[in-house]
Amino acid sequence: MSTPILPKSEAAALVAAARIRRGLTWSAIAAKIDKPVVWTTAALLGQHPMTAEDAAAVAALLGLGDEVVESLQLQPARDIAPELMKDPTVYRFFEALSVYGPALKELIHEEFGDGIMSAINFKVDIRRRAHPDGDRVVVTFDGKFLDYRW
Amino acid sequence: MSTPILPKSEAAALVAAARIRRGLTWSAIAAKIDKPVVWTTAALLGQHPMTAEDAAAVAALLGLGDEVVESLQLQPARDIAPELMKDPTVYRFFEALSVYGPALKELIHEEFGDGIMSAINFKVDIRRRAHPDGDRVVVTFDGKFLDYRW
Amino acid sequence: MSTPILPKSEAAALVAAARIRRGLTWSAIAAKIDKPVVWTTAALLGQHPMTAEDAAAVAALLGLGDEVVESLQLQPARDIAPELMKDPTVYRFFEALSVYGPALKELIHEEFGDGIMSAINFKVDIRRRAHPDGDRVVVTFDGKFLDYRW
Amino acid sequence: MSTPILPKSEAAALVAAARIRRGLTWSAIAAKIDKPVVWTTAALLGQHPMTAEDAAAVAALLGLGDEVVESLQLQPARDIAPELMKDPTVYRFFEALSVYGPALKELIHEEFGDGIMSAINFKVDIRRRAHPDGDRVVVTFDGKFLDYRW
Amino acid sequence: MSTPILPKSEAAALVAAARIRRGLTWSAIAAKIDKPVVWTTAALLGQHPMTAEDAAAVAALLGLGDEVVESLQLQPARDIAPELMKDPTVYRFFEALSVYGPALKELIHEEFGDGIMSAINFKVDIRRRAHPDGDRVVVTFDGKFLDYRW
Amino acid sequence: MSTPILPKSEAAALVAAARIRRGLTWSAIAAKIDKPVVWTTAALLGQHPMTAEDAAAVAALLGLGDEVVESLQLQPARDIAPELMKDPTVYRFFEALSVYGPALKELIHEEFGDGIMSAINFKVDIRRRAHPDGDRVVVTFDGKFLDYRW
Amino acid sequence: MSTPILPKSEAAALVAAARIRRGLTWSAIAAKIDKPVVWTTAALLGQHPMTAEDAAAVAALLGLGDEVVESLQLQPARDIAPELMKDPTVYRFFEALSVYGPALKELIHEEFGDGIMSAINFKVDIRRRAHPDGDRVVVTFDGKFLDYRW
Amino acid sequence: MSTPILPKSEAAALVAAARIRRGLTWSAIAAKIDKPVVWTTAALLGQHPMTAEDAAAVAALLGLGDEVVESLQLQPARDIAPELMKDPTVYRFFEALSVYGPALKELIHEEFGDGIMSAINFKVDIRRRAHPDGDRVVVTFDGKFLDYRW
Amino acid sequence: MSTPILPKSEAAALVAAARIRRGLTWSAIAAKIDKPVVWTTAALLGQHPMTAEDAAAVAALLGLGDEVVESLQLQPARDIAPELMKDPTVYRFFEALSVYGPALKELIHEEFGDGIMSAINFKVDIRRRAHPDGDRVVVTFDGKFLDYRW
Amino acid sequence: MSTPILPKSEAAALVAAARIRRGLTWSAIAAKIDKPVVWTTAALLGQHPMTAEDAAAVAALLGLGDEVVESLQLQPARDIAPELMKDPTVYRFFEALSVYGPALKELIHEEFGDGIMSAINFKVDIRRRAHPDGDRVVVTFDGKFLDYRW
Repeated sequence: MSTPILPKSEAAALVAAARIRRGLTWSAIAAKIDKPVVWTTAALLGQHPMTAEDAAAVAALLGLGDEVVESLQLQPARDIAPELMKDPTVYRFFEALSVYGPALKELIHEEFGDGIMSAINFKVDIRRRAHPDGDRVVVTFDGKFLDYRW
Repeated sequence: MSTPILPKSEAAALVAAARIRRGLTWSAIAAKIDKPVVWTTAALLGQHPMTAEDAAAVAALLGLGDEVVESLQLQPARDIAPELMKDPTVYRFFEALSVYGPALKELIHEEFGDGIMSAINFKVDIRRRAHPDGDRVVVTFDGKFLDYRW
Repeated sequence: MSTPILPKSEAAALVAAARIRRGLTWSAIAAKIDKPVVWTTAALLGQHPMTAEDAAAVAALLGLGDEVVESLQLQPARDIAPELMKDPTVYRFFEALSVYGPALKELIHEEFGDGIMSAINFKVDIRRRAHPDGDRVVVTFDGKFLDYRW
Repeated sequence: MSTPILPKSEAAALVAAARIRRGLTWSAIAAKIDKPVVWTTAALLGQHPMTAEDAAAVAALLGLGDEVVESLQLQPARDIAPELMKDPTVYRFFEALSVYGPALKELIHEEFGDGIMSAINFKVDIRRRAHPDGDRVVVTFDGKFLDYRW
Repeated sequence: MSTPILPKSEAAALVAAARIRRGLTWSAIAAKIDKPVVWTTAALLGQHPMTAEDAAAVAALLGLGDEVVESLQLQPARDIAPELMKDPTVYRFFEALSVYGPALKELIHEEFGDGIMSAINFKVDIRRRAHPDGDRVVVTFDGKFLDYRW
Repeated sequence: MSTPILPKSEAAALVAAARIRRGLTWSAIAAKIDKPVVWTTAALLGQHPMTAEDAAAVAALLGLGDEVVESLQLQPARDIAPELMKDPTVYRFFEALSVYGPALKELIHEEFGDGIMSAINFKVDIRRRAHPDGDRVVVTFDGKFLDYRW
Repeated sequence: MSTPILPKSEAAALVAAARIRRGLTWSAIAAKIDKPVVWTTAALLGQHPMTAEDAAAVAALLGLGDEVVESLQLQPARDIAPELMKDPTVYRFFEALSVYGPALKELIHEEFGDGIMSAINFKVDIRRRAHPDGDRVVVTFDGKFLDYRW
Repeated sequence: MSTPILPKSEAAALVAAARIRRGLTWSAIAAKIDKPVVWTTAALLGQHPMTAEDAAAVAALLGLGDEVVESLQLQPARDIAPELMKDPTVYRFFEALSVYGPALKELIHEEFGDGIMSAINFKVDIRRRAHPDGDRVVVTFDGKFLDYRW
Repeated sequence: MSTPILPKSEAAALVAAARIRRGLTWSAIAAKIDKPVVWTTAALLGQHPMTAEDAAAVAALLGLGDEVVESLQLQPARDIAPELMKDPTVYRFFEALSVYGPALKELIHEEFGDGIMSAINFKVDIRRRAHPDGDRVVVTFDGKFLDYRW
Repeated sequence: MSTPILPKSEAAALVAAARIRRGLTWSAIAAKIDKPVVWTTAALLGQHPMTAEDAAAVAALLGLGDEVVESLQLQPARDIAPELMKDPTVYRFFEALSVYGPALKELIHEEFGDGIMSAINFKVDIRRRAHPDGDRVVVTFDGKFLDYRW
């Protein structure tokens, strides 16, 4: 019988539930498929398609079925749920961009000329930096500069 | 006669004009007052109050008057102009957060527990990273972790 | 028993699932019914009604039932899901129009006078253009000029 | 005396007025500086910075002053005025994308894989195509494919 | 057992399905109950309550059950689904009003004084007008003038 | 000296003031240039470009200067001011479309097939219809049918 | 087994269905529990909690079950469904406030000083007023004046 | 020289200033022209056109010039400034409608059938009602019932 | 079989139902787990993760199952349902912030310098204050000051 | 000559400029007129009308003219500028309400019954609370409980 593919948001909910119940970290899952941890987490939340091999490996680790394996390989439509944008942990990033985005634009133009930092040829990393006043979250955006080129 | 203080957005427009006409970079201005370049650019665009000394030094460098010196010291109301959010150079950062923000939230909670990266006890840096396929823009967010603490 | 017609969005989800599971491309489906590929893809996503013959041919190719055949013939209400507008692959087109739309308006008026490019007597084509710096996506909009005619 | 740089929107209004009063077409201006006509029109409307030479040549052709020459060289913040998005000539492009955008996304992924058509390494062309039922507006978007590459 | 009344949108979907499957036009249904065709279509889409007799006659013609008869008599909350407003066939009417609405307001005030065309004591008609360049859609709004009367 | 062209909204305000002060109706102005009254009113409110002859004739009739003549010939960007959409005289038209728009869509498709009523090859008329219960406003939309034609 | 309480909107739909099927008016229900009719209608639509006695009396009158009795006692979150705000019968009230709200504000301040009419210590009444030109709807808002009192 | 008519919002600001400086109440102004006080206040705030006589009488009372007399007679575009809708004195009315609007709709339909309370053939009154617990604001809406009549 | 974790909103609905049916106050639940009452209520409504022990204790008290225990421990995405923001009891707080927020900003800067009151290192308390004119609701926000520190 | 009253926002800008230039705190101004500091600051920012005596005293202290004295007495339309709502210092209060507002609603109903905390019969206080981990901002809302009373 024909059925639609499990939506990526439902696959993500099954991944989240299995991950918590099995006591696995996102890092452990990323290590299992030998991919960067931010990429892996984003992919499992539905923002990147996975290869069949990676999808199967994650499903095996988490005890999930074929419908999840199929869904994880699906090409996503990338978006953020509106209600997540107000979550304080996410919102602080948007606030920082509201405060510093125009300055970053000025400095990109000063250093590179007219263009953008690609968000496609791009990677993100997150790490903990120890600090005597309290440890810090360090997030790095690393994207290729693209100049406006007609 | 009493007059309102020059709005920070108008001071920023005068700074921008003088900077371009004198052929000065944001980096050169930052060097003059010995402050980080993202902070200095943001402050001159109106997002941070400056000390009287720094404001005077910038005005001297740019040939601007006392009304600019006064305005640069004003406590800002921080915001981003709505029309700037669609500028492609700025938008790519918002897009990256839309794609990776939920993953960053998961990984902050995994590493640190329930809480946020502060956007106040926080700094941003931008640098160029040479790369054979084309140089890259590298932006680093570095904020103190704050846990939900009742 | 009376039942509503399968909504076109649900028919589209069934088409998408069957297409992927059978390893068929959109181009192969378009070839099967001898229609342009953009038109065919749009129609199967719910943006154009299909003839009974085309709908039946597609359903046969994909192994889908009568409720899909019926739905594909339905007159659509054309719209884009709001969450798709932020998907980066779709968004770049909207961004390009934000940057170049006013210029296109000027040049349509310069060449043709007061009027519009029809979006109804209209076709779209997409093709790959090889390029030494990386292949390119070429999309062509081709619509009849309509002058404001009272 | 320090003054802000003439905003690009005001420079655009002066260019538009002089162009009409002198009876010049956008094409003639583009020919003068030997640049593509869509690029030139967009630049003069405020969407691209011009070189000092091009800005001076345009100003000389149109009899405009130094404040326009200075403004045309300014790095823009790219955006579309909200009221322009409802103008029928511009709106038809947005409508066409609402109808065909999701199909274009499918076909980009089918042909190229997961990624986007760049709107930065990108050019637009517009031309008239004669047709017995009425001439047609043909607009071509040509952008480099960028794959999601971590 | 108590159950809610079938929502008018669901009744409309059942009417639409039965109408298509039985090959009936809206005009034929309107003729059956001897009502104007725009009124009948609007009523069956959920915008007017029907009498018990009309509801029963329509249901008999379409082979629909009592729950539809009951729903069609329900007092509606009148509204348009937001996604329908962007459908090109509907949107053209809204666009025409955006372009000509202020002129109509001027001319109503010139002819009648300060007041409005009622949208309640009101009827709409649609007809085809043959034309050598292509037939035309003619829609007539006919509403009682109401003056601002304290 | 170079100056921008008088914006069409400011030309409209001058036309409105002169029309009232001279005690002229929109109909009288339309008669002067031998154009339909809705078209003339819309054009003077800024929604259609006028020919040099018509613009000059209107300005002469109203005692307005060359800057108005120039502005009236300008190609418009068509839009409705947001605050006008809530004016009761204008709003009733939008309400009528919200109530009857989906029915009109159904009946256009039933009579003509898949397509739209053009809002470009289009005209509007308004007239008074005497009625014993109170006179009525009758507005007629008359647009060419355009079928979706690839 | 634990289950959530029936949402007030679902209880309202069951009340509405039973009321219509039994041929009861809102006034008759209000009379049964000896409460004002606007209050009773609003409460049954979900805007006021009812006492256990009143809820039971209404349910008995309408033949509804315990899950409705329980739901009607629930403390509401008061809101209006967005789609109801455009319904013409409701919209006219919002329009009247848009037109006369600022005048009412002026007159409240003139008569009472700086403050508001309470919407909590407040009651509404609706009645028919016979009139030779057609009967009238008379709605009275009656709320305690609250002055800004620090 | 031709000049635009003074916008009604600017006339309203001049009326407000003169009224306060001369120590006149809205009621006194209404008495002077023998019109209801809510109507007069609304008219002077820009929501109703005044006759030449009334406009001149108000201007004489307030010591205002001819440009105000002219503006007060202008046909308004009725709207409420968005920032006024959040003012607590105005907002309480909107809140009351959000809470009781659906109930009023039900009771209008119960008493009158399918239709609306006119907001055009309509009047508003406001009065103080003494009460031992604190005096009350009583606002009465009185509009003709209009039935949906095709 | 793998299933998603019960969403926190559904857990909250089950908690609310059980709390009401068992006649327990929020205070009694908070006392049971020895936590502040605002924190406990917020946590059970889905705004804070609970420890396994607390979740189990609440579930035991309320007779709820393991799926609730699991859900209550889940890391939340914090947000407020849009329809709750208009509820009068909640809205008054937002209104008070609209009126006094800018003043609080001024006074925080005056007392502490450039920075914010943390909403993370933060607690809220609510209590009743007896008053002869009617008892009062007293809500205290208590958050650590964070200075903008680069 | 008649002139409008100086808008309260412009009076606020003059107060702010004079306050800073004279080196006065908000507390000092409040002490001068013997009013609470939050009330005084809010009033000078335009949210409360002041008495003639207080307005004159503030103007004398700050060296401001009669047009400011007049403006400060004006009845305000209370609102918050939209761009201020995103300022981090103000936003944290809105965020705290988004997180804890529903819990406060529950606890108000538990303690007081169905009703609200008045935002009119209401006062706010702010103070510093010393703390070894960093001093804290303590803000207290204190409003009369109002029960829904028909």
